[in-house]
Amino acid sequence: MTDIAPLQKFVRRATELVERHGADEAALFADLEPLLKDLIRTDGWLPDAYRQPHPQFYQQYLLHADPLERWSVVSFVWGPGQKTPIHDHRVWGLVGVIEGAETGTSFVRRDDGRLVATGEERLERGDVVKVSPTVGDIHQVANAHADRVSISIHVYGGNIGAVARAVYDPETGAEKPFVSGYSNTAVPNLWDRSAEVRAGLQRA
Amino acid sequence: MTDIAPLQKFVRRATELVERHGADEAALFADLEPLLKDLIRTDGWLPDAYRQPHPQFYQQYLLHADPLERWSVVSFVWGPGQKTPIHDHRVWGLVGVIEGAETGTSFVRRDDGRLVATGEERLERGDVVKVSPTVGDIHQVANAHADRVSISIHVYGGNIGAVARAVYDPETGAEKPFVSGYSNTAVPNLWDRSAEVRAGLQRA
Ligand SMILES: [Fe+3]
Ligand SMILES: [Fe+3]
Ligand SMILES: [Mg+2]
Repeated sequence: MTDIAPLQKFVRRATELVERHGADEAALFADLEPLLKDLIRTDGWLPDAYRQPHPQFYQQYLLHADPLERWSVVSFVWGPGQKTPIHDHRVWGLVGVIEGAETGTSFVRRDDGRLVATGEERLERGDVVKVSPTVGDIHQVANAHADRVSISIHVYGGNIGAVARAVYDPETGAEKPFVSGYSNTAVPNLWDRSAEVRAGLQRA
Repeated sequence: MTDIAPLQKFVRRATELVERHGADEAALFADLEPLLKDLIRTDGWLPDAYRQPHPQFYQQYLLHADPLERWSVVSFVWGPGQKTPIHDHRVWGLVGVIEGAETGTSFVRRDDGRLVATGEERLERGDVVKVSPTVGDIHQVANAHADRVSISIHVYGGNIGAVARAVYDPETGAEKPFVSGYSNTAVPNLWDRSAEVRAGLQRA
């Protein structure tokens, strides 16, 4: 059985950081990045239901959304060769690879509206990258593998599935409204700590 | 398909109340009770997965836990004739009947440790009762029906499945440690508001 405790602890700590730092993005990035790196060091905590690829579409499984929609954490599952459109976020985000590898391509938009690719990097398991309107918000993410699933854990400064944002036409740079939603109707129950509490009572 | 929106709105508002009132139990009860009454006025928002009885045991389906474990909301499903042991909570709680009917019996503990029943009331659909160490914390809840399922929605001032509390022997009043846990490993995804956000974009 999956031990969900690492995700529960991540959710508690990330919530405390969001309460403490508010809109101070640099402080949040500084404190959240090590937490995410630690979370993706192992993957035994991620239940099977949130690592299932779809034959056609990359999947976005919500793992937790803050009840005030200040932040969220999502499992992205890429089938062989799958990729996102070029898109933005409008909030801060951290992307950490937990299985396989991904290719991230960054874009800036010129004054005439055209997109220019400014970098491409291969993200291996354990790597974390940042996005936001401040540090660069337009990118495209692809499974680096043509023959296997890759999975990344994404943390965002909002309920990302409900953020009004944009996808971009790679040829013209034209912007189209985009709301991503989620692939799942149920999220993991992080809060059954009864075994842990019972064990504590017996030690006491 | 279930429209989860009433539960999502309840969770947001209850979170705001818990942040505002903190440990002021009277203020919380005053503001939360009407929210719960409003929530249980209809039951179309409660997905089937969280209304399933078990042939032997009453079920406790977590619907949402606050990430800082300050509060939680749980669907209790009583099969025909099922009842809780006599138990306490150690935190504030509100119980609202959403389907069927329940019998609630309140107890006080005498100085010699014996339990005395101080009241029994039948709770119909739409009724809400309070529990807490302040207003009376020891009770027993039973399905009022011998031939059908009853369901109630419980709101507590903590992650109730992880609270170290007690059940009581009805004869002697002897107290036994109790941690209730949850019947479910997945909770509803309240946060896919993408259809609502897309509709708003089209109106704009
Ligand atoms: Fe992205
Ligand atoms: Fe109770
Ligand atoms: Mg009904």
